[in-house]
Amino acid sequence: MKLFRFGTPGQEKPGVWRGDQPIDASGFGQGWPDGRDWDERFFAGDGLTRLGRWLATEGARAPRVPDGTRLGPAVARPSKLVCIGLNYRDHARESGATLPSEPIVFLKAPSAIAGPHDDLVLPKGGDKTDWEVELALVIGKRAKYVEPEAALDHVAGFVLHNDYSERAFQLERLGQWTKGKSADGFAPLGPTLVTREEFPHFGAARLWLKVNGETKQDGNTAGLVFDVATLVSYVSRFMTLLPGDVLSTGTPAGVGMGHKPPVYLRPGDLVEYGIEGLGEAHQRVCSSEEPRP
Amino acid sequence: MKLFRFGTPGQEKPGVWRGDQPIDASGFGQGWPDGRDWDERFFAGDGLTRLGRWLATEGARAPRVPDGTRLGPAVARPSKLVCIGLNYRDHARESGATLPSEPIVFLKAPSAIAGPHDDLVLPKGGDKTDWEVELALVIGKRAKYVEPEAALDHVAGFVLHNDYSERAFQLERLGQWTKGKSADGFAPLGPTLVTREEFPHFGAARLWLKVNGETKQDGNTAGLVFDVATLVSYVSRFMTLLPGDVLSTGTPAGVGMGHKPPVYLRPGDLVEYGIEGLGEAHQRVCSSEEPRP
Repeated sequence: MKLFRFGTPGQEKPGVWRGDQPIDASGFGQGWPDGRDWDERFFAGDGLTRLGRWLATEGARAPRVPDGTRLGPAVARPSKLVCIGLNYRDHARESGATLPSEPIVFLKAPSAIAGPHDDLVLPKGGDKTDWEVELALVIGKRAKYVEPEAALDHVAGFVLHNDYSERAFQLERLGQWTKGKSADGFAPLGPTLVTREEFPHFGAARLWLKVNGETKQDGNTAGLVFDVATLVSYVSRFMTLLPGDVLSTGTPAGVGMGHKPPVYLRPGDLVEYGIEGLGEAHQRVCSSEEPRP
Repeated sequence: MKLFRFGTPGQEKPGVWRGDQPIDASGFGQGWPDGRDWDERFFAGDGLTRLGRWLATEGARAPRVPDGTRLGPAVARPSKLVCIGLNYRDHARESGATLPSEPIVFLKAPSAIAGPHDDLVLPKGGDKTDWEVELALVIGKRAKYVEPEAALDHVAGFVLHNDYSERAFQLERLGQWTKGKSADGFAPLGPTLVTREEFPHFGAARLWLKVNGETKQDGNTAGLVFDVATLVSYVSRFMTLLPGDVLSTGTPAGVGMGHKPPVYLRPGDLVEYGIEGLGEAHQRVCSSEEPRP
């Protein structure tokens, strides 16, 4: 299945694709206490199975979501957004870093999560905002001390993510990366959460990113240093991954910081990106002074 | 007011002190869509004002919470748990770090949050679990690019926090501190959230921690390098603080890592700590192999 969320920011409704039709799944929530949104309770309560049943029996009667409706983040705010650093060989090289001997883990504030086509507002005081197209996965089942062999059973599906990063905050302001990873809008998730069985080639999917039409990143998830199962297992040794949590697997080469000289985003820029099989997203870059539309 | 939460882990009910009586505030939620728990919606919806009114008019009829009831974390799971590193001069010194020129910010996984008297289960594979008694604040009103002068208006109250840290994961496992800060139980919050007007001396409060009866930390929040208002303002430049979010202000000297030689927690240890005016908490340390009671 392909799940999405739509409507006003903060008040999104759940949607799901039925064949080539995006339909409003608000009706699914009726009668299910845990079915109102694609969130922790939904995934924990075997929501995907129930949704599949609803789609088969009731989907034909559900209203179609009109074209042009704003898409929200494909999952409701998770308990945490876990990210992996330097997880493609070529990106580690362009960052001047040695290849990590084990995954580098950091957290991004969930308040950074945005819809896949929302504007990106540059944070005040930063002038080095950079892009990072990434394959992210959504946890379906609580994961704590999970072995790599069993890890994929804990994955509900996959979602496209752009791990926006303000390098001036991340690298020049002392301490941890957190400051440069957590501005509002720095984590667009979507357009859709594609469930695992509909995205079997997650280990060899092309991912790309363009700025103003020019290709900046063009990689393949086959180039991950630590693969999806390894990452879920690894992170689950340090914290419990809850249903609905998002884990983003890192970015391939081609970020702005890796250019010589470095290139960063400016108001008016258009960032477009995608992963084969997961869809595409784009953000128009705005200055912090512009009102959001 | 002094707020708390009680009952089964994950299904806590809201409580509030009425004079010297802890009362069940479940009745407060009835009729208020946003009053069911001490969470983001509660704080965002001016819940403290409404709770004060309820307490005055209905409090006398509310049931008393029986002695011996388990306390949960004093606030429901926040969107994020933001922490500050090396924010006391003496702790920076014992850590062998230079005094930071601006706050060091990191995130702890909200899944680490626990009740104030829950057991601390040592994470598997770690052998350097350490304590950090801290003053934490709870955001009452959304904070984004807030000036220091206005920052306290965004603070609902204060809560006692122990920022447990597995040093082997934090410092010897590559990358960011996240790995050593996020195990389940690593963030006990409570016993109570004390609202700002009832804790006016938050800038000069004694805080202490003992292990097996021996004093390890004995500091005062007057020793903070960056004070509460400065921290709220500073963090709000990098991420939006949402109602109910928790910001922990750092620990004074006396952590295990600062001892010569270092001292870490072992199964059977008892950790007790408190902040004058915010109450006390304790955790019994268990190995990861022991079943929790």
